[in-house]
Amino acid sequence: MSFTEKEFLQAKHRLEEAQARNREKERKVRTRRLIQEGAVLEKAIPQVRQMSLEQLEGYLCGLIK
Amino acid sequence: MSFTEKEFLQAKHRLEEAQARNREKERKVRTRRLIQEGAVLEKAIPQVRQMSLEQLEGYLCGLIK
Repeated sequence: MSFTEKEFLQAKHRLEEAQARNREKERKVRTRRLIQEGAVLEKAIPQVRQMSLEQLEGYLCGLIK
Repeated sequence: MSFTEKEFLQAKHRLEEAQARNREKERKVRTRRLIQEGAVLEKAIPQVRQMSLEQLEGYLCGLIK
């Protein structure tokens, strides 16, 4: 492997690692937002705690009709 | 420390560890449920993604009035 090829592969590896870190970071931000939305939903409409997820979806769709 | 005291403290420690594991388990179940509720909320009412948490709370409270 020539020096240039080695350098290229190293740079590619670093780029892929940075992209993986970014995806993980975005996934955490997304998960945190979903938790917050769920908490706000339970605060505003406490009875959602007793619903199955299917019931919850039907209930919310009914609310906005 | 008598044998009985040592046994008592060991049992107490095991109990406290079991309780800590239970709390952690309940916390994970609770977090998972909030994530699922948030995801259902975004599916049923996609525009909630663009709201701040304060806006979301006001919006949901308005919906059920």
